Amino acid sequence: MRAARLRVGVIGTGRIGAMHAELLAHDVEGAALAAVHDPDAATAARVAAELGVDAVGDVDALLRRDDVDAVAICSSTDTHADLMVAAAVAGKPIFVEKPVSLDLAELDRALAAVERAGVPLQVGFNRRYSADFAAAHGIVSAGGIGTPQLLRSLTRDPGLADPGAVPPWTIFTQTLIHDFDMLLWFNAGSRPVEVHAYADALVAPDFKEAGLLDTAVVTIRFDNGAIATAEASFSAAYGYDVRGEFFGSAGMVTAGTPAHLATTHWTAAGMVKPTSRQDTELMRDSYRAELQAFCRVVRAGEPSPVTGADARAALEVALTAVASVEQGAPVRLGASEVAHA
Amino acid sequence: MRAARLRVGVIGTGRIGAMHAELLAHDVEGAALAAVHDPDAATAARVAAELGVDAVGDVDALLRRDDVDAVAICSSTDTHADLMVAAAVAGKPIFVEKPVSLDLAELDRALAAVERAGVPLQVGFNRRYSADFAAAHGIVSAGGIGTPQLLRSLTRDPGLADPGAVPPWTIFTQTLIHDFDMLLWFNAGSRPVEVHAYADALVAPDFKEAGLLDTAVVTIRFDNGAIATAEASFSAAYGYDVRGEFFGSAGMVTAGTPAHLATTHWTAAGMVKPTSRQDTELMRDSYRAELQAFCRVVRAGEPSPVTGADARAALEVALTAVASVEQGAPVRLGASEVAHA
Amino acid sequence: MRAARLRVGVIGTGRIGAMHAELLAHDVEGAALAAVHDPDAATAARVAAELGVDAVGDVDALLRRDDVDAVAICSSTDTHADLMVAAAVAGKPIFVEKPVSLDLAELDRALAAVERAGVPLQVGFNRRYSADFAAAHGIVSAGGIGTPQLLRSLTRDPGLADPGAVPPWTIFTQTLIHDFDMLLWFNAGSRPVEVHAYADALVAPDFKEAGLLDTAVVTIRFDNGAIATAEASFSAAYGYDVRGEFFGSAGMVTAGTPAHLATTHWTAAGMVKPTSRQDTELMRDSYRAELQAFCRVVRAGEPSPVTGADARAALEVALTAVASVEQGAPVRLGASEVAHA
Amino acid sequence: MRAARLRVGVIGTGRIGAMHAELLAHDVEGAALAAVHDPDAATAARVAAELGVDAVGDVDALLRRDDVDAVAICSSTDTHADLMVAAAVAGKPIFVEKPVSLDLAELDRALAAVERAGVPLQVGFNRRYSADFAAAHGIVSAGGIGTPQLLRSLTRDPGLADPGAVPPWTIFTQTLIHDFDMLLWFNAGSRPVEVHAYADALVAPDFKEAGLLDTAVVTIRFDNGAIATAEASFSAAYGYDVRGEFFGSAGMVTAGTPAHLATTHWTAAGMVKPTSRQDTELMRDSYRAELQAFCRVVRAGEPSPVTGADARAALEVALTAVASVEQGAPVRLGASEVAHA
Repeated sequence: MRAARLRVGVIGTGRIGAMHAELLAHDVEGAALAAVHDPDAATAARVAAELGVDAVGDVDALLRRDDVDAVAICSSTDTHADLMVAAAVAGKPIFVEKPVSLDLAELDRALAAVERAGVPLQVGFNRRYSADFAAAHGIVSAGGIGTPQLLRSLTRDPGLADPGAVPPWTIFTQTLIHDFDMLLWFNAGSRPVEVHAYADALVAPDFKEAGLLDTAVVTIRFDNGAIATAEASFSAAYGYDVRGEFFGSAGMVTAGTPAHLATTHWTAAGMVKPTSRQDTELMRDSYRAELQAFCRVVRAGEPSPVTGADARAALEVALTAVASVEQGAPVRLGASEVAHA
Repeated sequence: MRAARLRVGVIGTGRIGAMHAELLAHDVEGAALAAVHDPDAATAARVAAELGVDAVGDVDALLRRDDVDAVAICSSTDTHADLMVAAAVAGKPIFVEKPVSLDLAELDRALAAVERAGVPLQVGFNRRYSADFAAAHGIVSAGGIGTPQLLRSLTRDPGLADPGAVPPWTIFTQTLIHDFDMLLWFNAGSRPVEVHAYADALVAPDFKEAGLLDTAVVTIRFDNGAIATAEASFSAAYGYDVRGEFFGSAGMVTAGTPAHLATTHWTAAGMVKPTSRQDTELMRDSYRAELQAFCRVVRAGEPSPVTGADARAALEVALTAVASVEQGAPVRLGASEVAHA
Repeated sequence: MRAARLRVGVIGTGRIGAMHAELLAHDVEGAALAAVHDPDAATAARVAAELGVDAVGDVDALLRRDDVDAVAICSSTDTHADLMVAAAVAGKPIFVEKPVSLDLAELDRALAAVERAGVPLQVGFNRRYSADFAAAHGIVSAGGIGTPQLLRSLTRDPGLADPGAVPPWTIFTQTLIHDFDMLLWFNAGSRPVEVHAYADALVAPDFKEAGLLDTAVVTIRFDNGAIATAEASFSAAYGYDVRGEFFGSAGMVTAGTPAHLATTHWTAAGMVKPTSRQDTELMRDSYRAELQAFCRVVRAGEPSPVTGADARAALEVALTAVASVEQGAPVRLGASEVAHA
Repeated sequence: MRAARLRVGVIGTGRIGAMHAELLAHDVEGAALAAVHDPDAATAARVAAELGVDAVGDVDALLRRDDVDAVAICSSTDTHADLMVAAAVAGKPIFVEKPVSLDLAELDRALAAVERAGVPLQVGFNRRYSADFAAAHGIVSAGGIGTPQLLRSLTRDPGLADPGAVPPWTIFTQTLIHDFDMLLWFNAGSRPVEVHAYADALVAPDFKEAGLLDTAVVTIRFDNGAIATAEASFSAAYGYDVRGEFFGSAGMVTAGTPAHLATTHWTAAGMVKPTSRQDTELMRDSYRAELQAFCRVVRAGEPSPVTGADARAALEVALTAVASVEQGAPVRLGASEVAHA
């Protein structure tokens, strides 16, 4: 019965939002796309027409619709907090893209509104739903590596199309925030206590003046003694590269590889395996899986797999890494928050 | 414009047909699902309801509908030929599952009807559209292995649910036919001249009397000197296993692996990599890709990537392998045809 | 105490013999090189000088020496049988290179002499001592794949230096004989019942007239139902390639890879792994390990790990494969023997 | 001609020294073992007897011998500097194990003596001679990754037999010093400018009081912008693990793997690949290769592949990492030297 589906309104129909809309329309079992909204009416109209739903010009109107059971907030980061508050007040369960906010106070304000309203909230750390990382996490959760001791997570994007358009600190707040979430998730139960970061503009040095950093290594010390490394680059010549390595007292788990096919080619030059500019598994399958989970959270009352607290913890690490770069020294967790207050 | 889509009627809504219907409904760009038919009305009704189209009780009625631009024949093998003739007479482009037929004369009759009607025809050898094998074939077509000399293709299914329900020779005509198509495709331009086969009932020996063979090795000699091996088992303890290895004067290409994740787990017991009971890439992505290709064949007039001649060539090898088992000797291509005439 | 070492006389100081001599001189614990002999006195003198031992011009003199505790027969295949008889009569334990002989009657004559003399005998199927294959065999022996069902062994040499110098049937009696031994070893306890072979001259077609076959695929049926494939080529563009794949009711084991380093190189062209023209592991480490085992056989009375019966079984398969090519049909084991008798 | 060989005296016949002695005696082309010395006369006598050379009780006597063309200093680290001075004064070319010293002033004193004497010096950073790392370095030297940006080197030992016997800072000065050498070697032409380190006692927490650190992550900033990570643990459950990952503007190279065989085992539990408690390739082959190189340095006048300056650079990073742990802050190169002065 179609009515029994979770009808989701998608707010923001840029690249990520359009993909979420399309997945909700067709590929998420038990879900349906209810309507879309985007400040850019033309974009919204195109996506709406393609998927056979309404484009709603006024976001509040979308939030008031009875046929919208929940919302997916996929607009630009600076709009997330206000939209979360509005959706919470409207009583709509919320899926929100990462990062929830770039500011801890703003984040706290949004989370408080969500808590007051009692609506379910799930944050879009989609890497948790990559098949590779999910399998790895299952092994770690089951004790497969014992106590975590050395953790590593990295993200390398295949290229930097327009360095001038990238806001400062993006590598920490937009890219490495995935890696921080990974490290926190794989070392669950422990808290980060100190962060040290090195970062530089090696890919596009001309943009360093403007604040663009494109290469970074962050080390994090946890209260269980584990030491974690997060690493990012905005330009991997060989294609998209997202990996994790989680080492503990009883073993190691790794996840991810830039080799996207099992195909191998052997010649006098050696063995060649193709890589890819795109990680379709991350780009589509993990998005579908997280929306599927959101559907279960709302319809079956499952606990949210990625909470507001998770978003806060990752953001805190990101901001502490920023502070470490600014100060040229390791920074204790909490210290940056005070500094920014 | 929705009307511009290729509206496909799906005949047969068993496991494969239902998947094709769902893919056409949602995931094949430029395609739409027009209607479905199945001799089992209840099955058809369920799929139709799920996907929001009509279940048509009379297959001829489906073929006469103006809103059916093309058909996908996914019913049982013995019905393929008559349905192809009917669709051809109705002027509908045809996608038909493999094997097209178990009988060369019947196959020829169906192909003749298709040719007379001048409708496009594409056969469902989906393995050609597996990303791994497609990439491998691209390398071979570009000369990456030089002249093919030693070819191998294998299929191992994770288990044999109901041996009693499997018709004799299934391993050749339903399973290895994929491998024969692979070997012919990777050695395109050459013709098989002789086939030798060993087969046995090792998985379910109790069913050998009833004609079930579950383990087979077929060697094929081609007119360019290349020697090929096709191998199948109905029971791989570690999961679905489909691979190819293509060796020539300038190198080798391999495709496929039973390890479906990059995740690794290292303990005192060694390194463990998960395998899978399902090959979702083969089971879904390659089906989507072949239907996408069919869409281009019909709408853009592209030549069919898998022709009736391809289906005939693979069936000929399969029947020759059967003859080899029956005779306990290698059999030349063509000889079995005569024998069966 | 140096006297406690097993002092081995090496007969034949060609490429293989020289390597054995050097290993015995330095790298086999508990062994020493006693003396060397070669029909080509200059070759023997060079090796002897390099390793600080005597070159003995008369092989019978070598066999009579008290300071020769055992012999390693590494001369050309046609001399093996007579040398084995002579060594047996002299009471010297024998290590002999593969193949022991190209003729079953001759082989039987040599084995009978060895048995009469009661001297230990070990045959040089060194692949059993490759670390990869040894580990794989350990897994199979421990039941790790259940009952063997589909076996594969292959040898691809990196090139054919002088096709004109290669005797007919070499690919079966010198190259594939390793693979036959592998298949027999991994399916121990079962007996081959029938062999079918395809072979051709694809690498050096001009030498086909002269009887050189450089590409072959052999299928073997065993009395436990298992079906095995042995495959060889004299020219792999990407380097030395020796592999095995052993599939059974409970799983699969593979051994070998042409990728000789873990080093990987990732660029826009994909991931590249180096291969090698030489397999040093097979070429040196496995030779050392088999000599180490021979040392234990003689000194500690361990049973021979590679017996005369093993050599006979592999030769029988090789000769049956030759008969299959000659007859263009599968040949039952034993039938070829009769035919040659 | 044996006299033409480089006759090397080995000083120190512990585990490493005994292995060097044995390699020089048998496996290094153009080299010979001349004599051995060890403060523990019994140990020296045993090795000498095994290898057929003299055990010299007085190290100065060994240095005076005419039949000692060069020395390999394999004794405990605290004796290296004085022995180097003595060998230099005696005019003997020197191979010395890493680390040359734990103190920069002492190191400088030894290097000055070597320079004054004009004798060749090679330091035992054997990892450079691991086949994997050597191949990787060849690729990087040829420009295969472009400009280095993100470098990683790690060492994980399979276990910590006797934590009480490990001196403080060992993880930096004895273990990670290999990784520092790797990072400096792969980023040759650049200089480290700042080091940050986290370290803890996670494997044997009871020994933390005594100063034992068993887990460490060091980040290094270079003057070309590259950021490097060195990581070590004294307890890897899955066996010996030494790896490198070198990423730059044009690609990435990796070296090393804990999977020491190509053998794979596939069952319902997944695919298993054996690992090892020992890395024989590092433990023997790289030692042989570095001694082979030393032989060429002395006999053919090749430039030393691992100089005193290399040893100094790695030690400087190690001591700076120690200072970083002590200070809880990043430390600039040179600053620690001053502090220790």
